[in-house]
Amino acid sequence: MAPLTNAQWLLAARPQGEIRESDFEYREVPVPQLEEGEFRVRNIYLSLDPTNRIWMNDAASYLPKLELGEVMRGITLGVVEESRNPGFSSGEHVTGLLGWQRYTVSDATGVAKLPPIPLPLTAHHGLLGHIGFTAYWGLIDIGKPNPGETLVVSAAAGAVGSLAAQIGKILGMRVVGIAGSEEKCRWLREDLGLDGAINYRTENVAKALSQNCPDGIDVYFENVGGEILEAVLSQINLKARIVVCGLISQYNAQTPPPGPRNLGMILMRRARMEGFIVTDYLNRSQEAAMKLVGWALEGKLKYRIDLVQGLENAPSALKRLFTGGNQGKLLVQVSPES
Amino acid sequence: MAPLTNAQWLLAARPQGEIRESDFEYREVPVPQLEEGEFRVRNIYLSLDPTNRIWMNDAASYLPKLELGEVMRGITLGVVEESRNPGFSSGEHVTGLLGWQRYTVSDATGVAKLPPIPLPLTAHHGLLGHIGFTAYWGLIDIGKPNPGETLVVSAAAGAVGSLAAQIGKILGMRVVGIAGSEEKCRWLREDLGLDGAINYRTENVAKALSQNCPDGIDVYFENVGGEILEAVLSQINLKARIVVCGLISQYNAQTPPPGPRNLGMILMRRARMEGFIVTDYLNRSQEAAMKLVGWALEGKLKYRIDLVQGLENAPSALKRLFTGGNQGKLLVQVSPES
Repeated sequence: MAPLTNAQWLLAARPQGEIRESDFEYREVPVPQLEEGEFRVRNIYLSLDPTNRIWMNDAASYLPKLELGEVMRGITLGVVEESRNPGFSSGEHVTGLLGWQRYTVSDATGVAKLPPIPLPLTAHHGLLGHIGFTAYWGLIDIGKPNPGETLVVSAAAGAVGSLAAQIGKILGMRVVGIAGSEEKCRWLREDLGLDGAINYRTENVAKALSQNCPDGIDVYFENVGGEILEAVLSQINLKARIVVCGLISQYNAQTPPPGPRNLGMILMRRARMEGFIVTDYLNRSQEAAMKLVGWALEGKLKYRIDLVQGLENAPSALKRLFTGGNQGKLLVQVSPES
Repeated sequence: MAPLTNAQWLLAARPQGEIRESDFEYREVPVPQLEEGEFRVRNIYLSLDPTNRIWMNDAASYLPKLELGEVMRGITLGVVEESRNPGFSSGEHVTGLLGWQRYTVSDATGVAKLPPIPLPLTAHHGLLGHIGFTAYWGLIDIGKPNPGETLVVSAAAGAVGSLAAQIGKILGMRVVGIAGSEEKCRWLREDLGLDGAINYRTENVAKALSQNCPDGIDVYFENVGGEILEAVLSQINLKARIVVCGLISQYNAQTPPPGPRNLGMILMRRARMEGFIVTDYLNRSQEAAMKLVGWALEGKLKYRIDLVQGLENAPSALKRLFTGGNQGKLLVQVSPES
């Protein structure tokens, strides 16, 4: 039997500032035969996330550095098509850092099986997985929210932010989102039921925050950094918690911009600013999944999928994340579900 | 009987940048007669602290704003000389925000009695009280230190920093101090037994940190802010804790300087940066005092007192704190101990 042909995107160059499509190189190569202990995954959905930009840098981050010429790192959802590993069977759905490619041959390192859920398969990326669990654990475990407190979420129309904001509402908080367009703000207010939404492109964020958060800010779910962080810091309450989930405003910067001038508010308000990563909570995934699926089935938690057809479009789609052009969780359909 | 004459320093002007002696106004006024429930304290020692600069600003901080014309706010240690309050008796030692003045008439608000200790009276300010308890709770409760971890302390020759650094050693940490002179660095290494000391005025702090902290930095006890914070952030370990105790480099700034460019390290290293204030731990003072006195009696914990004679010299002494001119806990002797 002729070998299957793989399609792959390699990291070809380190971006200088914004991502260019020429930072990636497309190639087709044969899929290798399976060795004992390996299995082959056909990737169905490739998740595109702001953190992908960090992975392209010439430096280790929270993950080892990706070398030039390697398959671009990416989280996918796929189906096992052939297996020589007794732990994985044909037809099972899996997820992991399986890369920007049609097929992945894996020895199971870092691959997790996906349990069946009473929701579309894309919910594993739009509601659960690294997106939903990030929102859940970040808000719950780092943010330590209390009913009646005020939560501010930046990039609130984004995949993680929109879930964090809704979870805040479910927990009885006053929730104000910051986003980059009128359409997104309308969605936050009208469809997600947020108490306020601020368009950072057209409004004075500090002023809008003071109007929308009359009792100050208790928890800030930070996806952005930069001037928005400074505006929020100026209005935090005593013992506020700043959940550092992402800093997308800085990922393209060639020289990192200065931090907020008012970092002293951390001292004045005895506040806590803390970074986290969802993989620290892997052993508690089931707990988060039960909550998130339950809330989604009750209609309390909505998510949107922004689906791009075809692996060949992954580089251009990734660029859209940094201009705010996506509407919901950005996925690339690499191959059909069945 | 003729009324006693009080000597007071009032806040006369808001400092623009560095403190000037003309920001204070000296006056002598009669001490009022005691009302029912009041007592009169003769202040013995006035504590001068970096945070005094914050209190002079035209803004609330963690305390209400001090108005122009009010007695300058300050923590003192004194003795009750006359009392119409059944809770306080003549001869008892007390502490509180009793102000820059020789006598304070108090209704007991915010005044704490000082228990007898087997150490000089000044130990209440140099080893215990707002100095020692700040070092203790900041390191223990916010820093969550573990034996074998690396602790970096800025302003390490200062009153709080030198205690925090020594407590780190007692707990089995590798401890590196940052200070502003060769003499201070020698004291940290030779007398306090620190593993390393960096003179930030003559050394490249980032480079010196990497030499002194070969295993990275787990806990940073922050008294300074600015460039030193940036240098430390660049070398923090996973799950590092940054204890924000003070930011003295910024207190005189008329326009606050930008924050560190590499605040993203909080995210990359899943670190925690947290401010605190010692008054949050008032109900646990005895626990801290037992430890600190015990360590001091065992010879494991040293402190120095820099004693300035005479209330009239308080303004010039306070200025010294911001040039690093003091050697140990800066106190003003307002009146004799007995």
